[in-house]
Amino acid sequence: MKLRIRRVALDTLRENVAVLSASCAALRPEAFQAFRRLKIDHESRTLIASLDVTHDRALVGPDEIGLTDPAFRRLGLSEGTEVSVSPAQRPQSLDAVGEKISGATLTGLQIETIVQDIAAYRYSDMEIAAFLVGCAGFMTSAELLDLTRAMANAGATLHWPSPMVVDKHCIGGIPGNRTSMIVVPIVAAHGLVIPKTSSRAITSPAGTADTMEVLANVDLSVADMRRVVEECNGCLVWGGHVNLSPVDDILIGVERPLNLDTREQMVASIMSKKMAAGSTHLLIDVPVGPTAKVRNLNDALRLRKLFEYVSDQIGINVEVIVTDGRQPVGRGVGPVLEARDVMAVLRNEAAAPADLREKSLQLAGKLIERDPMVRGGAGYRIATELLTSGVALATMDRIIDAQGRKSTAPALGALHRDILAPESGIVRAADCLRIAQLARLVGAPLDRGAGLDLFKKVGDRVEQGEPLFRIYAAEQSHFELTIAAADEESGFVLGANSQQDGKAAS
Amino acid sequence: MKLRIRRVALDTLRENVAVLSASCAALRPEAFQAFRRLKIDHESRTLIASLDVTHDRALVGPDEIGLTDPAFRRLGLSEGTEVSVSPAQRPQSLDAVGEKISGATLTGLQIETIVQDIAAYRYSDMEIAAFLVGCAGFMTSAELLDLTRAMANAGATLHWPSPMVVDKHCIGGIPGNRTSMIVVPIVAAHGLVIPKTSSRAITSPAGTADTMEVLANVDLSVADMRRVVEECNGCLVWGGHVNLSPVDDILIGVERPLNLDTREQMVASIMSKKMAAGSTHLLIDVPVGPTAKVRNLNDALRLRKLFEYVSDQIGINVEVIVTDGRQPVGRGVGPVLEARDVMAVLRNEAAAPADLREKSLQLAGKLIERDPMVRGGAGYRIATELLTSGVALATMDRIIDAQGRKSTAPALGALHRDILAPESGIVRAADCLRIAQLARLVGAPLDRGAGLDLFKKVGDRVEQGEPLFRIYAAEQSHFELTIAAADEESGFVLGANSQQDGKAAS
Repeated sequence: MKLRIRRVALDTLRENVAVLSASCAALRPEAFQAFRRLKIDHESRTLIASLDVTHDRALVGPDEIGLTDPAFRRLGLSEGTEVSVSPAQRPQSLDAVGEKISGATLTGLQIETIVQDIAAYRYSDMEIAAFLVGCAGFMTSAELLDLTRAMANAGATLHWPSPMVVDKHCIGGIPGNRTSMIVVPIVAAHGLVIPKTSSRAITSPAGTADTMEVLANVDLSVADMRRVVEECNGCLVWGGHVNLSPVDDILIGVERPLNLDTREQMVASIMSKKMAAGSTHLLIDVPVGPTAKVRNLNDALRLRKLFEYVSDQIGINVEVIVTDGRQPVGRGVGPVLEARDVMAVLRNEAAAPADLREKSLQLAGKLIERDPMVRGGAGYRIATELLTSGVALATMDRIIDAQGRKSTAPALGALHRDILAPESGIVRAADCLRIAQLARLVGAPLDRGAGLDLFKKVGDRVEQGEPLFRIYAAEQSHFELTIAAADEESGFVLGANSQQDGKAAS
Repeated sequence: MKLRIRRVALDTLRENVAVLSASCAALRPEAFQAFRRLKIDHESRTLIASLDVTHDRALVGPDEIGLTDPAFRRLGLSEGTEVSVSPAQRPQSLDAVGEKISGATLTGLQIETIVQDIAAYRYSDMEIAAFLVGCAGFMTSAELLDLTRAMANAGATLHWPSPMVVDKHCIGGIPGNRTSMIVVPIVAAHGLVIPKTSSRAITSPAGTADTMEVLANVDLSVADMRRVVEECNGCLVWGGHVNLSPVDDILIGVERPLNLDTREQMVASIMSKKMAAGSTHLLIDVPVGPTAKVRNLNDALRLRKLFEYVSDQIGINVEVIVTDGRQPVGRGVGPVLEARDVMAVLRNEAAAPADLREKSLQLAGKLIERDPMVRGGAGYRIATELLTSGVALATMDRIIDAQGRKSTAPALGALHRDILAPESGIVRAADCLRIAQLARLVGAPLDRGAGLDLFKKVGDRVEQGEPLFRIYAAEQSHFELTIAAADEESGFVLGANSQQDGKAAS
């Protein structure tokens, strides 16, 4: 059946959605409705899309096929082009998903086919959810390994001239934990190659890419990224142009709204990206705390074993370290505020957050010790020297210039308000989830200058009426929403008297 | 934030989808994007919706909130009404879904809350898929029972003055298996109360409601349904107006495209509807065959145990019978053709399909034996007498008149073509799935007169060039598609020589 393309300006995120007129001349939309899947062909191009129906002829006419934003973009043809439209079979790999749900163990080939179909946008969100939940039930080590490899192979892969390519990665969940922007210049200054690609925030108030973008361009082509690494040994760029494990981004887009967070998915996600990025030595930061992604040491150890198993099989030298995830790291939460903290550490300012500095030095030290020329135990000292001497700062400046320095840095939000302690006491806990949520609500990371500036750490004494943190906003309605939400639940828990366990976290 | 309602004429099926302008004045759509869930309030009305974004101001303006068909209909306010729009929290019951996915057993209260949230359209399709797949992994008997009860209680319930209310149900999957339309008049003629509510086809070529609608009105209110049952002891109506276990329809809408078909979901689906319908005695038909829903006797027995467990707990007297599901029943597949077969049986025509007649008599006999006044073993004989004497036909005529007889029955499709045997041989198999697919493709059930008329049964001898079946269509493009598909794979398997196992199915 021939229909002409009509654009429907609707952003349906990942999912290809096509729209048929209820009075479609050539096709009865009802006949497709039970399956809701269309195939659109034009010369060598093919697109699979889910189906919505419209009764509005002004939206899509009877001889037209409406394409929402992602479908229109991916098909890449102009409005009015005549295309063939037919009912689409469900991808055959969905049978394997069904087997998984029924308790089967999948073969490498089955997993590869599933991943390729997802990469080609042949799965609906509902079907991706079914696959992920089916895997969440149980997954063998072999399946996890196959999934990691298939995901890595479904996108671009990077190769580096250096035999040793180091990388670090945090599993996330801790606001303000912007160590990469300190670790990369230190390690690069030492002479190791560390081409760091980062993501933008999905549900958190800032990703490393968002924060680095306050200072420098991060939208680099692969060629530009290579040039920066050649000049500086390291870079801090957004991974989007590099197309590393694109299936990971698709899966995350479904996992997040479902709050699906299994160890296996986390390992496949991170290791597929690192495998594609050509890393040889990887340091993984696993923060543990009551409001972190990993809640106790036992879970952290099980996660570590999984990382070690997959890394060994795919040939990446991995080290997993468990860190303190009981509260945010640093002071600022949100791109501008986090960039401020990072630069304060690199500039050795007295007011720089001590916890961010210390954690970054620990991580950088571990990576530096991967250098065969460095004596065991000497990494931390070398990292400290590179930082305090200003060499790390100089390296960061070179990276910023090589990537393209921002002529005007975005400003802090013009609206601000302090949230005060409702009573005197000791800070017993600072809820990472709540603090991230508030920072997100006030506009971070899209409003670069929005966020929270935290004044207190766990164990600190506060007096009634003393500020716990300051909210920065660019936009009035979100500012008010956030103040109301913070007044209701600030994320800070105060206790009456000082206890040892409270102090331990400070 | 106040926005004015704008209708977006897009049928997104179950899911409430709201559309924000990318340049929305009061709300930054990006801030919602990670969560994609909005709450829309107006006085006492509340609606939860998923979020799409548009760059087209003609579709949704910056001070408007677009509502697609289901969201607009469910909120029930007119265009231009000012409503409050805010970010919505995910339903708390999703935490329980997460627990289920992680392997937990859910409490009755947790299941009840999930079902109520689904009934109120607070779950996205993706979230429903996560719940269903989580349950597909494993489900205890207690969970199944809780799910059945919660589903039954989430909709309307019917109560009947008669102490004995009989019902029959087939688990589906066998084309042409329209026994209800013969069983109901026989059983009603015997004097038992049998108020049958049926579904329309979702992915099959005809449901009982679709087929009955060829002869009579099936869109009856609950009051009209009661009147018909009072007059005739039985009815054959569409369950849509009665709102029995509406969550079942929502779940089925996600299960079908995912091909999720677990025993537990099947039992919860059927038993919740029967519990809500007020049935006291239920006969369940489980066809077994290589292309039926249940593939072997062992699976049928496990399914029977589940039906028995749940029925005992909710107080329904159940009998599960395993029937021959190795091929379609009767000759016609599609509403008009199936109605023709049913009436041929009721009219005792010589050409009436013997298998449909025989199976209907067996089922009716089983139900009649539930009557305490009937001697064990006498049911089949009584059913046969009611059929051959014309009493069943007279009862069917009364039911048709009471529901509202169609003045003009829909005609058979004007286009037809025979599909011929490519070689001589014995019919070894007739694929239920393929035959249903072809009938669906040619337009059934929406084209009442479209479908397949089957000429051969398993075990029959056919000569090369002899017709296997005839395709009827109302519409040229679907006619051609179906002929091509049938030529490629007709669903009929021919073998070289006669074998006992081939004959056994004839």
